[in-house]
Amino acid sequence: MTKAVVLLSGGLDSTTTLAIAQAEGYEPYALSFRYGQRHRQEFACAVRVAEAMEVAEHRVIEIDLRQFGGSALTGDSAVPKDRKPTRQENDIPVTYVPARNTIFLSFALAWAEVLAAGDIFIGVNVLDYSGYPDCRPEYIAAYEHMANLATKAGVTGHRPLRIRTPLIRLSKAQIIGKGTKLGVDYALTSSCYDPESDGRPCHGCEACRLRAKGFAEAGIADPLLAGPR
Amino acid sequence: MTKAVVLLSGGLDSTTTLAIAQAEGYEPYALSFRYGQRHRQEFACAVRVAEAMEVAEHRVIEIDLRQFGGSALTGDSAVPKDRKPTRQENDIPVTYVPARNTIFLSFALAWAEVLAAGDIFIGVNVLDYSGYPDCRPEYIAAYEHMANLATKAGVTGHRPLRIRTPLIRLSKAQIIGKGTKLGVDYALTSSCYDPESDGRPCHGCEACRLRAKGFAEAGIADPLLAGPR
Repeated sequence: MTKAVVLLSGGLDSTTTLAIAQAEGYEPYALSFRYGQRHRQEFACAVRVAEAMEVAEHRVIEIDLRQFGGSALTGDSAVPKDRKPTRQENDIPVTYVPARNTIFLSFALAWAEVLAAGDIFIGVNVLDYSGYPDCRPEYIAAYEHMANLATKAGVTGHRPLRIRTPLIRLSKAQIIGKGTKLGVDYALTSSCYDPESDGRPCHGCEACRLRAKGFAEAGIADPLLAGPR
Repeated sequence: MTKAVVLLSGGLDSTTTLAIAQAEGYEPYALSFRYGQRHRQEFACAVRVAEAMEVAEHRVIEIDLRQFGGSALTGDSAVPKDRKPTRQENDIPVTYVPARNTIFLSFALAWAEVLAAGDIFIGVNVLDYSGYPDCRPEYIAAYEHMANLATKAGVTGHRPLRIRTPLIRLSKAQIIGKGTKLGVDYALTSSCYDPESDGRPCHGCEACRLRAKGFAEAGIADPLLAGPR
């Protein structure tokens, strides 16, 4: 089987991405991060998802992005709970974490190189998160180009590395539909940016609202809301 | 003063790079990593250099690249001590650490974005380390392009970020000559990949040999060898 590194947060998108990588026949090496995020619940979900979906290996990287600050997700300001996503003056959501995807992909790149894996999967999406600079197709293309120059592939010239983004142009409803067909158990996943102390979703943040809207549009009941597990 | 993030390992090259950034009028924010390298002496030097050169701030990131392996520098194999640099079959030195510069630059990018710094300085050099894919000018250019798409600059379009590599085409002798003119105290720096337990350089590894050759060609005595400090 061909190895692939899959970035796994434990959320709906990355879990669906993992299922897609498996359906394409890849042997997935899942990579998760504890980076000081508010939503630690998500990390517990990553562990459950990796186990349930029987990845080849699950590695967890500890990095503290709180020390740089600059994001509501790492505690610099409150996670917005209103209807309209809160934006910074430059129209970037306050939940944007500076260079986070670049840091995550760079660790994935190191692991892919050591594993001799030719593919890195990341569940970025341009529709729901249009304000995040590091979710756009042009960013991913530039990262892929850089990654091929950064590593042995850039010297030997064979077997280029690909950054795979199977969700990038899908709506949340399409993502949920696709994952459901692939047998993803969304009860294992978590989307909330600011969960209650018992781990239940807040239902108010942008991530909760996008998830609810996606399940509604897909005509599927969110199993996470079916009751405690 | 204009802020710049400077990657500082405590070695000869990054210390010279810091001096150049200061000479150009930047207020330097130094960033160092403990990544599981054998040569921890170098890290102690980074602390001394940052203090002696009065940087605006010195941050240290703890990441463990040993968990990925794949390099003599993080303990996967012995650091070569022979005359000819040991290469892997693809002609990359065994001291190459997979994706290391990409990971370092990505943390620098996060900090630069939060600081609103427009420049990141890195002391890569293409002559001495021609086998390292992530020291080549085409890699740096690709990283800079990616970095501008990854961050707010990519959305707002103003004040692009630059990856500055003032040493990239200089010989070791030229680097030492330049640093000496700028008043760098090379006694504070360390280059050895595999120092003795008391911190003294091994004199056998490629980094020691490059340093010795550079000082000899520059006609300058290496102050590190003048005796214990």
